[in-house]
Amino acid sequence: MATKTQAAALFLCLLISASSATAYSRKTRRPRTPCRELTFFFHDVLFNGHNHDNATAVIVGSPQWGNKTAMAKPYNFGDLMVFDDPITLDNNFHGTPVGRAQGMYFYDQWSIYGSWVGFSFLFNSTEYVGTLNFAGANPLMNKTRDISVIGGTGDFFMARGVATLTCDAFEGDVYFRLRVDIKLYEC
Amino acid sequence: MATKTQAAALFLCLLISASSATAYSRKTRRPRTPCRELTFFFHDVLFNGHNHDNATAVIVGSPQWGNKTAMAKPYNFGDLMVFDDPITLDNNFHGTPVGRAQGMYFYDQWSIYGSWVGFSFLFNSTEYVGTLNFAGANPLMNKTRDISVIGGTGDFFMARGVATLTCDAFEGDVYFRLRVDIKLYEC
Amino acid sequence: MATKTQAAALFLCLLISASSATAYSRKTRRPRTPCRELTFFFHDVLFNGHNHDNATAVIVGSPQWGNKTAMAKPYNFGDLMVFDDPITLDNNFHGTPVGRAQGMYFYDQWSIYGSWVGFSFLFNSTEYVGTLNFAGANPLMNKTRDISVIGGTGDFFMARGVATLTCDAFEGDVYFRLRVDIKLYEC
Repeated sequence: MATKTQAAALFLCLLISASSATAYSRKTRRPRTPCRELTFFFHDVLFNGHNHDNATAVIVGSPQWGNKTAMAKPYNFGDLMVFDDPITLDNNFHGTPVGRAQGMYFYDQWSIYGSWVGFSFLFNSTEYVGTLNFAGANPLMNKTRDISVIGGTGDFFMARGVATLTCDAFEGDVYFRLRVDIKLYEC
Repeated sequence: MATKTQAAALFLCLLISASSATAYSRKTRRPRTPCRELTFFFHDVLFNGHNHDNATAVIVGSPQWGNKTAMAKPYNFGDLMVFDDPITLDNNFHGTPVGRAQGMYFYDQWSIYGSWVGFSFLFNSTEYVGTLNFAGANPLMNKTRDISVIGGTGDFFMARGVATLTCDAFEGDVYFRLRVDIKLYEC
Repeated sequence: MATKTQAAALFLCLLISASSATAYSRKTRRPRTPCRELTFFFHDVLFNGHNHDNATAVIVGSPQWGNKTAMAKPYNFGDLMVFDDPITLDNNFHGTPVGRAQGMYFYDQWSIYGSWVGFSFLFNSTEYVGTLNFAGANPLMNKTRDISVIGGTGDFFMARGVATLTCDAFEGDVYFRLRVDIKLYEC
């Protein structure tokens, strides 16, 4: 099972140089300047049946051939995760969280690793109060993936934009860290 | 089980005075006037294994330690619900519905009650024809929670805005009622 | 089981003339001209326990009375699907795909067939590079259903609009084909 989840963590946070950096990347037709730019990191620890106390993501749905403690084969297709991940300003998992990334992702590619995400960033700090809402495709074989900022509340009232997801690290069999570069074009 | 679902209904629709009214609330940087304001109520009856005929929401996904007829512990984390709730103009569950609230919510906080929602309001009445689409974080310990109106069709063509969710009531072990104050800033 | 999945395919892609063409259809208050119009088809083959190799959609969540290889009764309520469907420019399932439609849909109506969708179109061709993100209600008893284009990336940077879903065909017990007419009002 370690092998299965290791593969999952590996590919959710892919770093292989063979990935096509241009696939699905932004090819802006009308260059626009963001009204706001933000960078965060978030940290995901998958539940594997043995790490309940420090897991931040759990499988809640799976295909007929799957289960709730190991990713389905092939390519995790059909596995649906709910997560509650800490957000940090740098890549230190043990840094003070500035917010929480909460929502879901599910693997939706049959012949390669890829997922679809729907989640929010929740902030309640001296710096930010409010939420940012995200949705979009996350084709993991690409070095960077762009998803949509579909709305926001509080300090991010009526925000829209694009967030670029990059794998920043994976360690062991169940941890990955994503870097999120947010560019808002409506603030 | 009654106790478990009671806790679920209680906390999905939290009224405790200790809740922080300011957390995640809207702190509009640029005061704007809505182009449209609407208030509705919707009513959710959770399926608990014994109320199939009048339930409006069912558990369809759960973590390894969960099941389909009672909420997972702690904090319902990982439980995914699909719902088909009546919308009314006032707080009367038995009032004539003016539409349906249909979609999903799932609990995505490990250390407190909180959910993420993705749903639509469907109207087909003399007053409204069309849909409003919503997504966002619903941190239930806050007295009010703001989510995004991410789009609309028909009478709500291309709508965007913010909807404020407030617990209006809970009764018994499986019922709650939400008040939704919708402010559209793009109409 | 064939009967059950046949019913599912039938109603997900409904063609009956009794359907109300006006219900939930767009009644534009402010006629606007799209900045971009696109039409695609996508093809969905439901996994029924016996067609693993050519299925494109699988049940990953279901209510207590459901399972992972046949739709729940009544009206598939509570069934959650993850899909990876080919997109074509015409109605030929065996045509060269121009992209993939990937995401989820779940049945969320108790008394009729209806679903809620959250998915993306992923393009990486000579013609298009980028993604379009969709969300909204899909009340299947209506001949056409409008959902929201909630964002886009790449060639579809910051897109918003409305997509009209129409059943184009169903064949056998598990196949349906949707026509998607996309009108972008923000490009």
